[in-house]
Amino acid sequence: MKKTPTKMADGRELIYYDEDESAIRETSDLRDLPDLQVTSEVRHDPILDEWVVVASHRQTRTFLPPTNQCPLCATNADNATEIPADDYDVVVFENRFPSLALNALDVDPKVPVDSDLVERRPARGRCEVVVFTSNHDRSFSQLPVERVRTVLDVWADRTAELSAMPGIEQVFPFENCGVEIGVTLSHPHGQIYSYPFVTPKTNRMLRSARRHMEETGRNLFADVLAAERRLKARVVAENDNWTAFVPSAARWPIDLHIYPHRRMADMTQLTEAERDDFAEMYLGILQKLDSLYGKPLPYIAGWHQAPVNRDRDLAYLHLELLSVQRSADKLKYLAGSESGMAVWINDATPERIAEMLREAGT
Amino acid sequence: MKKTPTKMADGRELIYYDEDESAIRETSDLRDLPDLQVTSEVRHDPILDEWVVVASHRQTRTFLPPTNQCPLCATNADNATEIPADDYDVVVFENRFPSLALNALDVDPKVPVDSDLVERRPARGRCEVVVFTSNHDRSFSQLPVERVRTVLDVWADRTAELSAMPGIEQVFPFENCGVEIGVTLSHPHGQIYSYPFVTPKTNRMLRSARRHMEETGRNLFADVLAAERRLKARVVAENDNWTAFVPSAARWPIDLHIYPHRRMADMTQLTEAERDDFAEMYLGILQKLDSLYGKPLPYIAGWHQAPVNRDRDLAYLHLELLSVQRSADKLKYLAGSESGMAVWINDATPERIAEMLREAGT
Repeated sequence: MKKTPTKMADGRELIYYDEDESAIRETSDLRDLPDLQVTSEVRHDPILDEWVVVASHRQTRTFLPPTNQCPLCATNADNATEIPADDYDVVVFENRFPSLALNALDVDPKVPVDSDLVERRPARGRCEVVVFTSNHDRSFSQLPVERVRTVLDVWADRTAELSAMPGIEQVFPFENCGVEIGVTLSHPHGQIYSYPFVTPKTNRMLRSARRHMEETGRNLFADVLAAERRLKARVVAENDNWTAFVPSAARWPIDLHIYPHRRMADMTQLTEAERDDFAEMYLGILQKLDSLYGKPLPYIAGWHQAPVNRDRDLAYLHLELLSVQRSADKLKYLAGSESGMAVWINDATPERIAEMLREAGT
Repeated sequence: MKKTPTKMADGRELIYYDEDESAIRETSDLRDLPDLQVTSEVRHDPILDEWVVVASHRQTRTFLPPTNQCPLCATNADNATEIPADDYDVVVFENRFPSLALNALDVDPKVPVDSDLVERRPARGRCEVVVFTSNHDRSFSQLPVERVRTVLDVWADRTAELSAMPGIEQVFPFENCGVEIGVTLSHPHGQIYSYPFVTPKTNRMLRSARRHMEETGRNLFADVLAAERRLKARVVAENDNWTAFVPSAARWPIDLHIYPHRRMADMTQLTEAERDDFAEMYLGILQKLDSLYGKPLPYIAGWHQAPVNRDRDLAYLHLELLSVQRSADKLKYLAGSESGMAVWINDATPERIAEMLREAGT
């Protein structure tokens, strides 16, 4: 894999990751783009003890453009896109409408908050877009396995680079797939959010893991994985290095966790064999998902990695994939119980979900 | 208000709350209904340390029936509904497809879980439906203020009764409004979930409140309310007994918290004046919401009440209302950051949301 870092017309970073080691990247972004003014801030909610990102400049972001105006396609005579090349393999660039940016402006001191109760900071993180292929009409599940492997290498490389940037506390590579969950660009792509704080979900997970370690001397995630591998009822796929299972308290109609058999903090620590095995398993799982209802399944898939600066011996790298599709024509909505009280109601048992996924596409 | 408890054909409880003290309720449910077999269970997620409800018998629940088959309308010759009367004011009954039920069956011992890691129990709580009016085409925002006051009295009465039922740890009255958030019946109604555990959201809030009390000797919710009333920038409405404000770290495009000025644990403690004042303010707020985009705004509104058996001196009754509508034609979706990491991204500042709501409908 050959990596070529470049700059876009407005100064954002764009990086080509080419499968061909001899690739030459010399074209430039010739657009006349306005400078970025990122006014995002993070505010600490004193009641829920969580950071919230307030990104008011994003309301005008691009929303489901027609294919011939897709900003993620390769550039051609009629469409000068975000990617100034006539073809590419995988490309990463800084989001034009970022929630988080290292150069976010200082917070506006005129906004009235009670500083004893509410902490505010500029949202100095980073939001990157990862474009998986130049083929607008592909989905991740239709990539060749070599490309999935390349994407995994890119995620690992980004995790290393982003972890070294100032103030970054957690790196979260994820993919939103499908208009049903609000995707605004259909070209196959994912995102990487690099947060200037440890996220609420990770804090909760680590709190449980710390308590379990104190009580048993063992790693909680490893114990959960071992139990699922032993019980088998919720295991969907397994190979030498990875197991995919539906968690025993699944929240979503499709809820799948994919763990490496070896505990590690983040993707930079994956071996070559682990990467190969993941690519193969993940592709098979995504193909199963698309076969469930005879149409591409909307999903959210995200990598849970250790915080950059703490609890790296407690966290356990894994991927969580969920779908809101609860039948061929019905979606799961977050209504009162979920949104109001954080109590998830699942209409399917985890065991039944696992059975359905095992049988899908076979 | 006159209260008449009755039983439905399958044994579920149905209670009429009539504004007319002389109302007589003697009609019976003549349908031939199958007995309920509720197989719901609650499972404890060892990693997130939260209870999840698994309610597999609900997949077949009624989904957007045509108006002439609405199960919440008054019964007529062509439609024997859940309510065996030719008219009514407010009716409460046990949900036919409950996530939680006091008579939920014992958990199936054949389901393989690691009992050291995952606790399982029958989902012995209660799910009630609260029908706000017999008028199928009304919305809550179109109710007369006297009816809103009646509904508030019903919520308070239900809170008292449900809190006394065995094993109930928290009572959550809420309303889901709008197909955009998954409402499956359009007839104006709300629900009350009575959980056999304290909810994750409430646990988080109480953890912060406990720490604040230890550090300052003061109530966190009262301090937040006092700061908002002093700063005014995020206050949307105020009267003698209540203030409605957008929280300083608002998560949703519309995010409104309505607090009584006096701290109390739950709705049973509301005075007559507080009830009158709430009804008037809430109706005005809902009318503002409907005027924002010239169409009924989808929303979720829920009452945060103290747990039944603990922290009643720490909690602070209030209502939280949110909407996923982020412009006239766009919805806010929970995508990777929210669903994966519990980091909310808001495209609007809390101050701008408050300004928009203050100006709406004026």
